[in-house]
Amino acid sequence: MSYNTFGRLFRFTTWGESHGEAIGCVVDGVPPGIALSEKDIQPYLDKRKPGQSRFTTQRQEGDVVKILSGVFEGKTTGTPVSLLIHNEDQRSRDYDSIKDKVRPGHADYTYWQKYGHYDYRGSGRASARETAMRVAAGAVARKILGKNISIRGALVQMGVESIDRDSWDWKEVNKNPFWCPDKKTAALWEKYLDSIRKKGSSVGAVIEVVAEGVPAGWGAPIYGKLDSDLASAMMSINAVKGVEIGEGMNAATLMGHENADVMRMKKGKATFQSNHAGGILGGISSGQPVVVRFAVKPTSSILMPVKTVDKHGKDTDIQTKGRHDPCVGIRAVPVGEAMMACVLADHMLLHRAQCG
Amino acid sequence: MSYNTFGRLFRFTTWGESHGEAIGCVVDGVPPGIALSEKDIQPYLDKRKPGQSRFTTQRQEGDVVKILSGVFEGKTTGTPVSLLIHNEDQRSRDYDSIKDKVRPGHADYTYWQKYGHYDYRGSGRASARETAMRVAAGAVARKILGKNISIRGALVQMGVESIDRDSWDWKEVNKNPFWCPDKKTAALWEKYLDSIRKKGSSVGAVIEVVAEGVPAGWGAPIYGKLDSDLASAMMSINAVKGVEIGEGMNAATLMGHENADVMRMKKGKATFQSNHAGGILGGISSGQPVVVRFAVKPTSSILMPVKTVDKHGKDTDIQTKGRHDPCVGIRAVPVGEAMMACVLADHMLLHRAQCG
Amino acid sequence: MSYNTFGRLFRFTTWGESHGEAIGCVVDGVPPGIALSEKDIQPYLDKRKPGQSRFTTQRQEGDVVKILSGVFEGKTTGTPVSLLIHNEDQRSRDYDSIKDKVRPGHADYTYWQKYGHYDYRGSGRASARETAMRVAAGAVARKILGKNISIRGALVQMGVESIDRDSWDWKEVNKNPFWCPDKKTAALWEKYLDSIRKKGSSVGAVIEVVAEGVPAGWGAPIYGKLDSDLASAMMSINAVKGVEIGEGMNAATLMGHENADVMRMKKGKATFQSNHAGGILGGISSGQPVVVRFAVKPTSSILMPVKTVDKHGKDTDIQTKGRHDPCVGIRAVPVGEAMMACVLADHMLLHRAQCG
Amino acid sequence: MSYNTFGRLFRFTTWGESHGEAIGCVVDGVPPGIALSEKDIQPYLDKRKPGQSRFTTQRQEGDVVKILSGVFEGKTTGTPVSLLIHNEDQRSRDYDSIKDKVRPGHADYTYWQKYGHYDYRGSGRASARETAMRVAAGAVARKILGKNISIRGALVQMGVESIDRDSWDWKEVNKNPFWCPDKKTAALWEKYLDSIRKKGSSVGAVIEVVAEGVPAGWGAPIYGKLDSDLASAMMSINAVKGVEIGEGMNAATLMGHENADVMRMKKGKATFQSNHAGGILGGISSGQPVVVRFAVKPTSSILMPVKTVDKHGKDTDIQTKGRHDPCVGIRAVPVGEAMMACVLADHMLLHRAQCG
Repeated sequence: MSYNTFGRLFRFTTWGESHGEAIGCVVDGVPPGIALSEKDIQPYLDKRKPGQSRFTTQRQEGDVVKILSGVFEGKTTGTPVSLLIHNEDQRSRDYDSIKDKVRPGHADYTYWQKYGHYDYRGSGRASARETAMRVAAGAVARKILGKNISIRGALVQMGVESIDRDSWDWKEVNKNPFWCPDKKTAALWEKYLDSIRKKGSSVGAVIEVVAEGVPAGWGAPIYGKLDSDLASAMMSINAVKGVEIGEGMNAATLMGHENADVMRMKKGKATFQSNHAGGILGGISSGQPVVVRFAVKPTSSILMPVKTVDKHGKDTDIQTKGRHDPCVGIRAVPVGEAMMACVLADHMLLHRAQCG
Repeated sequence: MSYNTFGRLFRFTTWGESHGEAIGCVVDGVPPGIALSEKDIQPYLDKRKPGQSRFTTQRQEGDVVKILSGVFEGKTTGTPVSLLIHNEDQRSRDYDSIKDKVRPGHADYTYWQKYGHYDYRGSGRASARETAMRVAAGAVARKILGKNISIRGALVQMGVESIDRDSWDWKEVNKNPFWCPDKKTAALWEKYLDSIRKKGSSVGAVIEVVAEGVPAGWGAPIYGKLDSDLASAMMSINAVKGVEIGEGMNAATLMGHENADVMRMKKGKATFQSNHAGGILGGISSGQPVVVRFAVKPTSSILMPVKTVDKHGKDTDIQTKGRHDPCVGIRAVPVGEAMMACVLADHMLLHRAQCG
Repeated sequence: MSYNTFGRLFRFTTWGESHGEAIGCVVDGVPPGIALSEKDIQPYLDKRKPGQSRFTTQRQEGDVVKILSGVFEGKTTGTPVSLLIHNEDQRSRDYDSIKDKVRPGHADYTYWQKYGHYDYRGSGRASARETAMRVAAGAVARKILGKNISIRGALVQMGVESIDRDSWDWKEVNKNPFWCPDKKTAALWEKYLDSIRKKGSSVGAVIEVVAEGVPAGWGAPIYGKLDSDLASAMMSINAVKGVEIGEGMNAATLMGHENADVMRMKKGKATFQSNHAGGILGGISSGQPVVVRFAVKPTSSILMPVKTVDKHGKDTDIQTKGRHDPCVGIRAVPVGEAMMACVLADHMLLHRAQCG
Repeated sequence: MSYNTFGRLFRFTTWGESHGEAIGCVVDGVPPGIALSEKDIQPYLDKRKPGQSRFTTQRQEGDVVKILSGVFEGKTTGTPVSLLIHNEDQRSRDYDSIKDKVRPGHADYTYWQKYGHYDYRGSGRASARETAMRVAAGAVARKILGKNISIRGALVQMGVESIDRDSWDWKEVNKNPFWCPDKKTAALWEKYLDSIRKKGSSVGAVIEVVAEGVPAGWGAPIYGKLDSDLASAMMSINAVKGVEIGEGMNAATLMGHENADVMRMKKGKATFQSNHAGGILGGISSGQPVVVRFAVKPTSSILMPVKTVDKHGKDTDIQTKGRHDPCVGIRAVPVGEAMMACVLADHMLLHRAQCG
């Protein structure tokens, strides 16, 4: 992995800024002969698309993806798949009043320090807009993985409010604007987030992504571990501050006999009786569901004024009037799913390479 | 990063099994002209070395490192530095009774599924013994980073017992067998861990690693982010299940105005007034301390019998009589420091490449 | 380097087929703050552009390049530079009559064997059209290298007719349709190539690319040698069958004392008295001009009928009526220059990373 | 590929200097379950070993290889195979008289310019001694490729004396000290090289390596072409100045109809009637023998005095009294074979990854 390229064998390179003409990515390493069209990709982009409820940014983007190469007569050719989305609703003027101010929590300060020169409009390259291309690449990855592998994500915590895991119902996820698997909590979140939004602030969240159907044996010691790659992939998503596999941080609190996923033969098959490990042992998939969680910090751009400095070395206040998500974690759900798909596709190919 | 190689420009490749003749690594990309001898590496290995208290495995390893190449007349030449440690105390017989049993929580099952064939003695390649070479490579990385960057780690949680952060004293870290920065908690842990050890079980832990003196500007969007690489590096350490930067998973619970690291000019310098971000914004260092935490699960090899299966498809019980750590998290402290050093050295070179 | 991505730190990924909607590339790793616009790139594309004389294909392509990202207010930002060219004159019908026939010397057979499925129109991805994006990336590389490094190419042999090296004049190169540095030979080639073209055949060529101003010290042992990377870069150009550095294949015929580039102090500077080495020793630049030559085979698509097979397993004849270059080596001159620029830019950054 | 690591999936990293304690390599990406012992590797090392006739250096090295990891119960485990050879006959004193002099044609000057500081004893890392580890890695690659792929090399030109290709007999190759496939030429070379040796000079050579049994479909456009990787691999061998595939540089002289490898159905199989292409089309193997040639320059270290400079900026003469090969090309034959094996093994795995 290097800079703007993800992956080893299943690789994609993203480009484009929030307020440029377009964003895009080039997906390389795709096996030949896979049926692929824009219809396979668009639904995932629609899921991530802004402006779908009052709980996400009001920026209006069609996010219509176009395949420019790598597909011939409806099938992948094995050559690079170039994907492009035109930016539509880039109100760059929104940023004029703050262009010299450093927005706390954003990459303004660090890009300035690193590059000297940067695109202040909507964070330029550091914008979450880049994640649209991850979602597009993730849709291609799903086609490589095939129908036997299912990848689903859900919001499991918003601010201090967690779901009731006993009420988890995957069918609920698409029925509320939060991708919440627990009906009651979804209702609660609606009020909770409204109150935060009205206050002019924002809130963090935790996303859980589960991959089922992953065979045992994917992943590779020592620096190509499946969990190591998942951690990298999730942490690379904007605003993510923590990543967990299986028990995650909670593993620290357990004793060895509590954390053991004991095994028993069941219909002639070695079977685990729990999944504290989150489906990965020694960096290699165990055949159990692969379970990843990640925490997204609260959106840094808020209406409440925040103390900061400007580029001329003066103390100042900043108030972000651009259109932003009160809980950016919501739209991170399809992004987390996409990154899971991309990591798995890469490891599927890596495993096939070494072990046939 | 690929398989057994870490890094992009500062790169190391580790090899060797727990019960083989030796373990080693090849460190590539080291700048020329840096003073380097075994004396720069050995102290870090001694810190990680087993058998130093009743709280770590009783395996006795001198862990004496030897530099086989890349240094001439006391200085690095810019060519690969090959490091080697002979294994000494490999009581392979300990493993005879369990060689056909799958040890829950270990990589036995997944290596078996992936490779068909594997070295069951002390987990072979999956053993934490491999981390000795990370520590060795980390010592080389520290020499590249120079004296202005300090990297220190501490155990901040053992099982359900966390330190009191207000009592944090770096000087305490070397005065107890746990690398605990809080004197009182260290005393408490001694009893706590003894009770768990006597029970025949083990316990998890959380390690915190802090790098000070890192200049603003290291790291690279989008898939070469400093935090993304740290997450990958820490998650690649044996038994790690969660990684956090700054606020980590707790960021989910905060509101935007609480999480903002506000800035003020101070003696003509832009200064942050808090460090929720853990020193990284948009994947790039901000000049504040870089703060990483990771959770280590309880050692899987325990004296208490655990249900499992064997390779002949029979249900069975397993009891691990080999010499193991009751809290493997303790010895993960120098390993976490080493990985921090390696990630930073890699990014120092990457930054110099692109930005001069 | 992997699949469709060139380079380590200065990296570009190309995409697109000869008869698709567009071709493009993403250039990553560009240092920030470099003035860059389409005007810096277009002249090199114009040099490679088809249809400029009767000696190159009559396909008419404007080859107008567009920068879609990575540049803000006229300067590079350090983020990916996305470049795009729309295809204009794709007469795909030309290929209808031969779509089931394997064109000898082309990649038809091997793509078919590898991928099962491929784009037969104008060779799809295997078309020399891809080299337009190398030329575009090369223009970006030149901006990184700066004005002190000059990179120039020339055609030094066409078929059996070589130039007279004693008459080499760089000023002549732009005055004839062959990039020939020797006026007399250029006149001779005009007749020579006309006769071959009228015969319905084609002919091979040798290109020489010289980089002046490269400082001593670029390149890296052992598998990152400057000459090794140049060999890879040149051999990756369509139709290239041989690559030489300095004396090249002729080095085999020399004795040690003949081949020695002896040194003498000159105005206080160590100076070479010849350049058999082509400016590279031990994989590292010596400060002398870097000299690379490569041989391009005759265009495989010719009007003369050639025996072949079709995809149904029948013997057949093929005659290519598409628009092709009688000597594809001519248009390889700017491509070779571009690849030299890209390799050097990559090594400039690599050297800066390791040696500061 | 980066610095001291070769390959993408089949990867090896070499380390060690000519006059250090040992040299070694770490081979990563090896599929599990392959029978491997030192006996599979030693014969190839013996072939490359110095001191076997008066036509190679008189340095005496046992070159006994040891496997330190990655093999368990006689089979590869899929984890890194570490190989080590102790240096035995390092007469470093030979170099004392020339330690401050720049040896023309060697890497002394460029290492000095790049790194400031270097190991002058026997060229340190730049010594051809490194190629022993390529040969060892190549032996592992051969085991991956299996018995259906044969890789053989021969010396086809020494100085101005080429073999008679009509007399090519592979059985002759092992019967003379030159790996010459033509009995008469071998006899001639004996006198020819003796005369050059007595003169105190050296001479260049051309090596040809042929791989038979490679299936159609290995290789990958555009920057992962099989020929591009072969060019890189061969050019990375010490003293190589030119690389050719199939017709090589001679392709420039041919016309399209002469160079066409026409096809005909033969027993239901598409068959080529010639192999000008050297078994590669569009960067992908065609199923024909893969044919590579490379030129090795004359050994730079010669007994005849050569003008040069020293590190103190004085003109001087140099005469190399160390033990050197009068025609270093001879020992390059097994090295070229090894690099062919390594490139093919890497592409076998890459092809399996993408195309199943």
